[in-house]
Amino acid sequence: MPALAADLLKRFAAIVGDAHAITEPADLEPFLIEHRDLYRGSTPLVLRPGSVAEVAQIMALASETGTPIVPQGGNTGLVGGQIPHNGEVVLSLSRLNRIRSVDPGNDTMTVDSGVVLEQIQKAADEADRLFPLSLGAEGSCQIGGNISTNAGGTAVLAYGNTRDLVLGLEVVLADGRIWNGLRSLRKDNTGYHLKDLFIGAEGTLGIVTGAVLKMFPKPREVATAFVAVDDPAAALKLFTVARGKAGAQLTGCEILPRIGIEMVLKHAAGTRDPLAEAHPWYVLVELSSPLEGADVDGLMQAILEQAFETGTVRDAAIAGSIAQARDFWQIRLMMSEVQRSEGGSIKSDISVPVGKVAEMLERGIGIVEKMIPGVRPVPFGHLGDGNIHFNFSQPVGSDRAAFMAHWDEVTRVLDDLVMELGGSISAEHGIGFMKRDLMELIKQPVELDMMRAIKQAFDPKGILNPGKVV
Amino acid sequence: MPALAADLLKRFAAIVGDAHAITEPADLEPFLIEHRDLYRGSTPLVLRPGSVAEVAQIMALASETGTPIVPQGGNTGLVGGQIPHNGEVVLSLSRLNRIRSVDPGNDTMTVDSGVVLEQIQKAADEADRLFPLSLGAEGSCQIGGNISTNAGGTAVLAYGNTRDLVLGLEVVLADGRIWNGLRSLRKDNTGYHLKDLFIGAEGTLGIVTGAVLKMFPKPREVATAFVAVDDPAAALKLFTVARGKAGAQLTGCEILPRIGIEMVLKHAAGTRDPLAEAHPWYVLVELSSPLEGADVDGLMQAILEQAFETGTVRDAAIAGSIAQARDFWQIRLMMSEVQRSEGGSIKSDISVPVGKVAEMLERGIGIVEKMIPGVRPVPFGHLGDGNIHFNFSQPVGSDRAAFMAHWDEVTRVLDDLVMELGGSISAEHGIGFMKRDLMELIKQPVELDMMRAIKQAFDPKGILNPGKVV
Repeated sequence: MPALAADLLKRFAAIVGDAHAITEPADLEPFLIEHRDLYRGSTPLVLRPGSVAEVAQIMALASETGTPIVPQGGNTGLVGGQIPHNGEVVLSLSRLNRIRSVDPGNDTMTVDSGVVLEQIQKAADEADRLFPLSLGAEGSCQIGGNISTNAGGTAVLAYGNTRDLVLGLEVVLADGRIWNGLRSLRKDNTGYHLKDLFIGAEGTLGIVTGAVLKMFPKPREVATAFVAVDDPAAALKLFTVARGKAGAQLTGCEILPRIGIEMVLKHAAGTRDPLAEAHPWYVLVELSSPLEGADVDGLMQAILEQAFETGTVRDAAIAGSIAQARDFWQIRLMMSEVQRSEGGSIKSDISVPVGKVAEMLERGIGIVEKMIPGVRPVPFGHLGDGNIHFNFSQPVGSDRAAFMAHWDEVTRVLDDLVMELGGSISAEHGIGFMKRDLMELIKQPVELDMMRAIKQAFDPKGILNPGKVV
Repeated sequence: MPALAADLLKRFAAIVGDAHAITEPADLEPFLIEHRDLYRGSTPLVLRPGSVAEVAQIMALASETGTPIVPQGGNTGLVGGQIPHNGEVVLSLSRLNRIRSVDPGNDTMTVDSGVVLEQIQKAADEADRLFPLSLGAEGSCQIGGNISTNAGGTAVLAYGNTRDLVLGLEVVLADGRIWNGLRSLRKDNTGYHLKDLFIGAEGTLGIVTGAVLKMFPKPREVATAFVAVDDPAAALKLFTVARGKAGAQLTGCEILPRIGIEMVLKHAAGTRDPLAEAHPWYVLVELSSPLEGADVDGLMQAILEQAFETGTVRDAAIAGSIAQARDFWQIRLMMSEVQRSEGGSIKSDISVPVGKVAEMLERGIGIVEKMIPGVRPVPFGHLGDGNIHFNFSQPVGSDRAAFMAHWDEVTRVLDDLVMELGGSISAEHGIGFMKRDLMELIKQPVELDMMRAIKQAFDPKGILNPGKVV
């Protein structure tokens, strides 16, 4: 157990009360393990404050004593940002779990940062509104973590990243002062936009304790199509047609390779091929409208007709029921999961300008196929955002460990390609601990200098999530 | 003329060449006068660099010598932010006026910061796309100024503020270093989002020299309705119905008072009342769709029917032609202008949470009517953004000067009300020079401290637009 003087530990514990100051090894465990078992941290103390005032007191004491703090939400982060890698004290936000108010008249909701994303979705739904942020971990991730990592998910195309869903923030600073920036305004040009600095800062500039979130009208009509195309270039053309005709009503546009479909059909019970014949690539297109009776099926027909006419599309199925639409999405949602049953897979989280997705896919596949003969590329994801989960499964019958030993090499060539195309090596997940060493490679010195200057200004003692991001 | 040592002036001039270093009083004039004649600055030198490298050299020299610099775009700012109030050197971006590239495949455009907004709208149009930022000064304002003030305008409801339209920035820092942040990605979570710090910073943190802008599908079908309601509360209800049914297809929602209509009918040639009878308040509703043949008229009908059923709406006219839609908008667009013909008017630029617009209007009108008997309130504007131009015309037959003497008093009570309702005293225009003294009143000390810490980190010598914002 890392060192923390007994009297200091007691002072921290006294702030939250002994019942909420965890020190028993067995009880600490869930806060230390990254859920894919990539990282295991260590800590003498997990603090579970029950109020913003307690968070402020913890930071004031941490600042006074130079004690490093790792803030933690639902512990679902994918880059190790929430883990105490060097024995830091963990500050868990889980007890700040109140939805403070819901205001349908302003289409906003004010929440504690420890509220689980699914609870927020439900609260919006009960107010006959949509909170569009949606991702795999939504049953356990917390909105404070979503905000601190600027989470993406499946609804970015129409509604934006988490950044675009936040109107205001409440933040406890490194020195324990509380900033009440809980504004719920659509327009406010009074000075620097501090909220955008904390969003995506991964807990290195302050601790988010509350937020004002935007809500949207609920979709009443949805059309979902499973569309076959020859290659990623055709998929891009289809996206351009769909976006041009549907605008903001295009709420999903995901690209899927044939091999991914086959893996799903083989390993996921109850799935079936939406189309009669096999095609090399597919696009899952979703349109939606808040207007009851809106003709989104007609809109889908118009999009597909234009795409057929130009030879962009080979075949297509429009879901005839909600159940069928769910089946289409199920294929997409299972695509990461089923790769486990096919042996080792090397994964990444990258983005490029939307118009360069086809080039990135074609060149990236070519490079890795040359590097590892027999490798099975399974790239899929958010075509409309330029964000692809560029995954590779091991060659059939090959040795798993030997394949996985290529991880760094594959990641490096893909990252190089992504940078050449003006892309990002971390589209959704952030930098955290995992990618911090890459920052020197991907950022200009002047940009790193600006980030360090901000970090220095906001956290001069370096106690907020040290060793992460910058 | 303020002092600037002759040899230093020569060094600055040498960077841009004598032809672009203005020192003659007559030639300096256009850079010194605020167009409403609220402010008049002074300067020994206006520099008109022709490249980003020259901007960088200017700032390097300014930093070396501690010379304050005021960046200026189209000189259309409304809070005096672009004026050299204390004899600073003016850095005009006007010669950086190239559209660097247009990429319809990625729905983006990369531009110099000195390009006039209207040119950008046209370039998008030529690529069969929409650049939605639109405001009164669009024929002369420059995109760099729009970015530095996070300009609003008439399309915020559907497309957001300027901030939401910018994917990447190129910025020359106070010390002359160039940050190339010209990314064109929809998703990028690699460190602090520096671009959002420069947007809306009014040239106090760096000089924007280039930007990557988002483009959108062009609207193909538009429906426009002029709707009569009893009061602002009914207007809000109508907005809620329209937003709930049309979602992102609701592209305009403006509130107008009867007296404003009457002023327009009286003073603006060729205008006529869209409805047969007079009503106390009106809402101008616009729907649009990028899909040719989309039934936006049917959508408008559905919205109005539901609003009629609940007694929210008294009467409505749907434009039967593009010309009629233009006539409806003309009434809205003339509303500020015609107030000139009715004597003095006291104006403001405020916002509140959308759900509080009715309360703000009712209380604000009540307070000022009590303060100035006979005053004529003419509040109108962006209902859907919570941003109202809360204007007051002088009582009929009263003394103009006596009325205008109430400016500060009226502004103060409105600002107090706005702050009480969680609003903003500068929704669109920024802080600049005009509202800097108010920052102490409207911001928490901790927020001002953060802003000052950022200013100190980015501009330690205080040479970037000194005396503005913070």
